[in-house]
Amino acid sequence: RINADRLWDSLMEMAKIGPGVAGGNNRQTLTDEDSEGRKLFQKWCEEAGLTMAVDTMGNMFMTRPGTDPDALPVYVGSHLDTQPTGGKYDGVLGVLGGLEIIRTMNDLGIRTRHSVVVTNWTNEEGTRFAPAMLASGVFAGVHTQDWAYEKEDAEGKTFGDELKRIGWVGDEEVGARKDKMHAMFELHIEQGPILEAEGKEIGVVTHGQGLSWTQVTVTGKDSHTGSTPMPMRKNAGLAMARILELVDEIAWSHAPHAVGAAGHIDVYPNSRNVIPGKSVFTIDFRSPDITVIKDMEDRLKIGAQKICDDMGLEVEFEKVGGFDPVEFDKTCVAAVRSAAERLGYSHRDLISGAGHDACWVNKVAPTAMIMCPCVDGLSHNEAEEISRDWAKAGADVLFHAVVETAVI
Amino acid sequence: RINADRLWDSLMEMAKIGPGVAGGNNRQTLTDEDSEGRKLFQKWCEEAGLTMAVDTMGNMFMTRPGTDPDALPVYVGSHLDTQPTGGKYDGVLGVLGGLEIIRTMNDLGIRTRHSVVVTNWTNEEGTRFAPAMLASGVFAGVHTQDWAYEKEDAEGKTFGDELKRIGWVGDEEVGARKDKMHAMFELHIEQGPILEAEGKEIGVVTHGQGLSWTQVTVTGKDSHTGSTPMPMRKNAGLAMARILELVDEIAWSHAPHAVGAAGHIDVYPNSRNVIPGKSVFTIDFRSPDITVIKDMEDRLKIGAQKICDDMGLEVEFEKVGGFDPVEFDKTCVAAVRSAAERLGYSHRDLISGAGHDACWVNKVAPTAMIMCPCVDGLSHNEAEEISRDWAKAGADVLFHAVVETAVI
Ligand SMILES: NC(=O)NCCC(=O)O
Ligand SMILES: NC(=O)NCCC(=O)O
Repeated sequence: RINADRLWDSLMEMAKIGPGVAGGNNRQTLTDEDSEGRKLFQKWCEEAGLTMAVDTMGNMFMTRPGTDPDALPVYVGSHLDTQPTGGKYDGVLGVLGGLEIIRTMNDLGIRTRHSVVVTNWTNEEGTRFAPAMLASGVFAGVHTQDWAYEKEDAEGKTFGDELKRIGWVGDEEVGARKDKMHAMFELHIEQGPILEAEGKEIGVVTHGQGLSWTQVTVTGKDSHTGSTPMPMRKNAGLAMARILELVDEIAWSHAPHAVGAAGHIDVYPNSRNVIPGKSVFTIDFRSPDITVIKDMEDRLKIGAQKICDDMGLEVEFEKVGGFDPVEFDKTCVAAVRSAAERLGYSHRDLISGAGHDACWVNKVAPTAMIMCPCVDGLSHNEAEEISRDWAKAGADVLFHAVVETAVI
Repeated sequence: RINADRLWDSLMEMAKIGPGVAGGNNRQTLTDEDSEGRKLFQKWCEEAGLTMAVDTMGNMFMTRPGTDPDALPVYVGSHLDTQPTGGKYDGVLGVLGGLEIIRTMNDLGIRTRHSVVVTNWTNEEGTRFAPAMLASGVFAGVHTQDWAYEKEDAEGKTFGDELKRIGWVGDEEVGARKDKMHAMFELHIEQGPILEAEGKEIGVVTHGQGLSWTQVTVTGKDSHTGSTPMPMRKNAGLAMARILELVDEIAWSHAPHAVGAAGHIDVYPNSRNVIPGKSVFTIDFRSPDITVIKDMEDRLKIGAQKICDDMGLEVEFEKVGGFDPVEFDKTCVAAVRSAAERLGYSHRDLISGAGHDACWVNKVAPTAMIMCPCVDGLSHNEAEEISRDWAKAGADVLFHAVVETAVI
């Protein structure tokens, strides 16, 4: 079993980097804080005897060599970047849980035939640079690196420039190792309420739901809020309001098999006495069923077009992120389930509500995920919380699944 | 008659300071560009023989002395600050139109019994620091200077600090001259469509409609857009959408005697995959009828409270700006009307849809406004446009109304 106190101490130590305003973290991707977090992780890994490789997307691979140089490595890991008002565990648990199983293997003198590699994937959150899981997506060959490098944050800074600026462009070609992976396991907090509600310690993740991000741009006409008569207004903020209501209706029509909302909302020029001439916002639709996602996308476009036509406004749609529903590798999933059994942890199968790097890696290697509960299912919130016991259960299961997979 | 080419050239010269991105201006209050615009205006005024006084709110008073030191001054003027995506005429026409009538009096050797003072009021627009017409409001005794100094922009900079930073804190006590004003005339573009639609050159402004700005803060709970089930969401962005629709309904229910919209909209943390835990937006309601304004405010509060209660969210309201409907001084209004008559300009009486510094000054001195048309009624937009003839007509009427008032 892993050392729960050591894991917890590392989680708390990492959380000191890029503190939030309400007890959580703001350690967004490719900021100075991201770089600092990476350095601390590197230091801990080197202390545990791992050797580092970094690829051209900034993905970090920390290797504990196996006994058989011909055996392909087993990967673990997740991401160290956070939301602007994020929690201390989303992503971090999977990276530091990976480090903890290495430390435990060292303590117990466990040698494995396969190498074990702890990974930190760049820009999982997708807040600063859409889409989410950007660097694991490039790694898996879903996006090109050039495309990723050109992604811009809200200030117009590019991913490529910022990665260079923080000094984490590695020399390994991204994806070079993607055909040489034995398996990958990602430990993550559930970010939803199911495990806690049912009193289960472990989620055995069999599937991940699919996602579609559509950025909507409505163009009306800036004009004076006081002296423009109601019938002459071209209010891009009001059209946005109507589209947000439509999104909610569409998602509910498929509930509980779909969700939908907008987290990103901007109006221009954003002045109290100017009717917004432009609104830009991103709709996030998800479902485990690809036909439901397509239906929601279609209804959004048709409905938003009608809303804007009726108001005499222009509307444009741009798909800024998305992935199809995922089915994880049966053998890896079984390894997770039997590890939970063996350790005596209560468990149930789960569909991941969120996207994860594992969803992309699953395209190029046998992959599975382990989830542990989080309080009130709350995530993407500084108040995100887990118990030490939950973290321990998750890391124990990761430890057993990985060792079982890596020894033979 | 005034010199239309000289007025136009000055307008175009001023528009070079703080250019916008689409042919208009971004010369927001208390920015470096505001300071530069003030300096150019000061230079022109001094060239025309005026002497400057600046008060502690940064209001500029440029005086052409009258022949009778005991006769109270006649004021003209408006504001040089603009919206972030503002036009070249909103406010500026009133200030430079005021300068132009001085230049014309100089050309024609006209002496007046009363002094004539051209004024530039600080922060009329209210975009950077709410409320609008802030410094004329302090001048008229409606707000205290301390209250105004503490107003913060979106970056948390205060009005007081920024006024100091740009170097325009004067030594005259604000409002010191408010009981020593003979009259005030403000020339402004209509910012609405009526004059152009009816082919009138001059609007004789008899009233100004009242305004109410309510900042609404909805508090929900940040959470994950993917893994939070629909029934568990506390989506402050969706509540905002419903409130914006309500605002539109309320305004239409009183149309054409009211308008309503939100120009300022922010959601937090504004991340694509975080359900907004907070939304902050400002509702702008206006009507010439105070009972209609009060009705709209009440229905907003009751309706928004119900929307938020139904969704399990918190809502708070803060009044961040407002003024009652205004009736301008009958003698001053008559002076404007008879000047238009005498000059042979087509005219009609108007109710101003926008707020103006004249609305506050009217509390302490006999005041009236002159309006000229603008193309398509468009304002608070970089494409705001007027014709040289319209500018000339407005400045001619200002000239005659002022001279008539100041000679006797
Ligand atoms: N796990 C997680 O929060 N990933 C961010 C990508 C997503 O929005 O699902
Ligand atoms: N004239 C003008 O646009 N003033 C700004 C204050 C208002 O919103 O009416």
